[in-house]
Amino acid sequence: MADKKGAFVTEITPQSEDFSRWYLDVVKRAELADYSTVKGCMIIRPYGYAIWELMQQALDRRFKATGHVNAYFPLFIPESLLRKEAAHVKGFAPQVAWVTRGGDEELEERLVVRPTSEAIIGMMYAKWIQSWRDLPILLNQWANVVRWEKVTRPFLRTTEFLWQEGHTAHETEREAEDEALRMLGVYRDFAEQELAMPVIDGRKSESEKFAGAVDTYAIEALMGDARALQAGTSHHLGQNFAKVFDITFQARDKSVQHVWQTSWGMSTRLVGGVIMMHGDDSGLILPPNVAPYQVVIVPILRGNWRETVLPHAEALRDELSAAGVRVTLDARDWYTPGWKFAEWELRGVPVRLEVGPKDIEKSQVMSARRDTRDKMAIVRTEIVNRVQALLSEIQQALFDRAHRFRDEHTLNVTSYEEFKGVMDGRPGFVVAPWCGESVCEAAIKTDTQATIRILLMDGSGATGSCVRCEAPAREQAYFAKAY
Amino acid sequence: MADKKGAFVTEITPQSEDFSRWYLDVVKRAELADYSTVKGCMIIRPYGYAIWELMQQALDRRFKATGHVNAYFPLFIPESLLRKEAAHVKGFAPQVAWVTRGGDEELEERLVVRPTSEAIIGMMYAKWIQSWRDLPILLNQWANVVRWEKVTRPFLRTTEFLWQEGHTAHETEREAEDEALRMLGVYRDFAEQELAMPVIDGRKSESEKFAGAVDTYAIEALMGDARALQAGTSHHLGQNFAKVFDITFQARDKSVQHVWQTSWGMSTRLVGGVIMMHGDDSGLILPPNVAPYQVVIVPILRGNWRETVLPHAEALRDELSAAGVRVTLDARDWYTPGWKFAEWELRGVPVRLEVGPKDIEKSQVMSARRDTRDKMAIVRTEIVNRVQALLSEIQQALFDRAHRFRDEHTLNVTSYEEFKGVMDGRPGFVVAPWCGESVCEAAIKTDTQATIRILLMDGSGATGSCVRCEAPAREQAYFAKAY
Repeated sequence: MADKKGAFVTEITPQSEDFSRWYLDVVKRAELADYSTVKGCMIIRPYGYAIWELMQQALDRRFKATGHVNAYFPLFIPESLLRKEAAHVKGFAPQVAWVTRGGDEELEERLVVRPTSEAIIGMMYAKWIQSWRDLPILLNQWANVVRWEKVTRPFLRTTEFLWQEGHTAHETEREAEDEALRMLGVYRDFAEQELAMPVIDGRKSESEKFAGAVDTYAIEALMGDARALQAGTSHHLGQNFAKVFDITFQARDKSVQHVWQTSWGMSTRLVGGVIMMHGDDSGLILPPNVAPYQVVIVPILRGNWRETVLPHAEALRDELSAAGVRVTLDARDWYTPGWKFAEWELRGVPVRLEVGPKDIEKSQVMSARRDTRDKMAIVRTEIVNRVQALLSEIQQALFDRAHRFRDEHTLNVTSYEEFKGVMDGRPGFVVAPWCGESVCEAAIKTDTQATIRILLMDGSGATGSCVRCEAPAREQAYFAKAY
Repeated sequence: MADKKGAFVTEITPQSEDFSRWYLDVVKRAELADYSTVKGCMIIRPYGYAIWELMQQALDRRFKATGHVNAYFPLFIPESLLRKEAAHVKGFAPQVAWVTRGGDEELEERLVVRPTSEAIIGMMYAKWIQSWRDLPILLNQWANVVRWEKVTRPFLRTTEFLWQEGHTAHETEREAEDEALRMLGVYRDFAEQELAMPVIDGRKSESEKFAGAVDTYAIEALMGDARALQAGTSHHLGQNFAKVFDITFQARDKSVQHVWQTSWGMSTRLVGGVIMMHGDDSGLILPPNVAPYQVVIVPILRGNWRETVLPHAEALRDELSAAGVRVTLDARDWYTPGWKFAEWELRGVPVRLEVGPKDIEKSQVMSARRDTRDKMAIVRTEIVNRVQALLSEIQQALFDRAHRFRDEHTLNVTSYEEFKGVMDGRPGFVVAPWCGESVCEAAIKTDTQATIRILLMDGSGATGSCVRCEAPAREQAYFAKAY
């Protein structure tokens, strides 16, 4: 806060001028994150962490409601263990941090700081699972992971990040497939209900899927600059890891079989997604469900306000807080109300309430919505109900606005010229039939920078010929430039 | 569970035979933790992790109620940063893990996997704090830390462990001292109320204090084998780190001053503490407040029990669950009720309820307390109130029992012969006056293996002469053999 003292909030770069610069400005000025001296590692400041905590609670509740339990596996993975699954190590080895010394000694075997935990969990499942009666295993882990990134951006791509990784094991292929899709549904519900983030879901192409998976499913959202963000992935791992780590069980028919597995994850990258989906030139706009403060009360500093206004503001705060509203009262007397309005707008608090001598006289409170900037006087006695209604409205309005934006930025195209034209102009989702060949996918990427974000489930809607090579279409694909 | 199938729970080593073996048996058989292939790193299994989650919630609630917020700092600390505070690096450098490679490149500067976060947090505080208006900063972090240990034991001493570390910065020495003691009080309250763990509190001697602190305060508990366990520490850091990291602020009188700091931590070691404080030869005994399941319902499998008994058991479960009781129904038909009784005793569930045809006939439920093994029929219509009352009683009874045990194992001694005699026979706390000299403390450790666990606050009770060297006593000390 210190660098803003006594002055109005310094301007942040307008989105239209430079969206990327706007993002970094908001992250810094809203005190969501800061840089450390370790390249690519961020510090999540209390305001940013509080958003993540609300996300965690909302996700963890959903995991437990679907029968999952939490556990914790080690940070370090021996090199030999990571190397067991060929595709997995190929995908991750180039981007891991290596521990080579412990205390005063050189290690005999190098350790990897986990980039993900399939390997170590696979090893333990082999030990724990013996019979079909031990299945399914439905575990989740909240943890930090490390991927040695060359280009980083706070929340969106950092060397260390926080996430959850679910890891399940099942008797049959069908059960594993159902689980992978069930968790995709949980992610979708979470994104839409809590983050007010409309998403599309589908399957990843071969080139975009998780290293070691049979199928990767994902939800994708369109950010304020119409670039796509992968918001969560759910993998059907088949028996790939089970065969490598020898995870077998005695089946109901007494035969010995390999388990079928899934894994799925969401991370602190979602904090970045919320910023980029809803924010505007004045800063953050937080959906009420994940706003650390849903309401800020700003007392008007006039005359002996400590005696006249402050007690009213405190009573208001206590009343809202008792009703379960996350509320803060900004009673700092070294800032003007005007400065505070701008500051809390920058921080995206959904509702601002102002309390001054005139409001008290009229038994009312002035309210201001962050999303529409609408101001409205609320009768003091109705404040709790009205604020709760306002928060629901804002949550829905943010979702609706984002949904409209996505609709406006989703185009079906049939010719490659049209495709390239769209990608050259305003970005967004381009929906087009695709032949299913990686070579063709790569050529499209080279030509347009767009990648396949998802393929519609079961090839639904794939008719006609591939938008680029004109071979028969096997998939209906969503293309976009992505984060 | 797999290795126990079809058989009664295999015996665990009796406490009296080998307490240390008993501990390891319980950890393994109750499925609290398991070993990984990385030496000293444990896997916290779902049942053990659920205990930790309940501890986290109870602590986090207390931190927030005392005005603290959570944040997250990087896992990696550059070597040069750790080396800034001389005592700090001396204490920690010999036991850290070193990252020397990232991706395909050798790092220019080695990174330490955090053993604790004073250094990186100090660096950020220097950046964030400018004025007295920015103070106090009251932060906490939930994180994993790594200390390269030579001898490890699940929960009690592991290379990687989970903990919380509080880090605060204040205007004055007095405020920092008050904060350090306030958090010691929070720890004491948490241990006694939630873990049913009576503790003594006080100050650490020079040789036992945190590397870089002015004063370390601690709570200590006596385990079932009468050895002491340090359960939580709170450090007054003075201006040591502030001077090294240049954390200054403009004071109210416009002068530039260094902040005063504290740090404080509790870890997964407490799960080990709960096991060793309350357990018996049949396994775990969990205090209801941190028991993943407070109640287990075991249906009696007789005749067509799925039609006659199971619906009653399910109704009972739903009723208790709706009242906020953590309850599980063990309806597995491949285990006998007798096997289940032993299994859930081993897992320390505070209350077992049995439902059979006769109980249904009599409109009652049979209950069994894990701690006393008392059995009692409860009228079905009174079940919720009676179970809630029973859980409170058990929570209190465990605390009282542990308190009596500690009283019986705390002796005031005045002569060194008596001291050595006690330590040779049954261990426990020995309270004795001490001169305050490290040489004397070291000699006592060599002679008896006992260390100073805490010194009473403000030297209270220190009269007469040192128990060993007979110089004038400056402190009243609690000695014990410790974990």
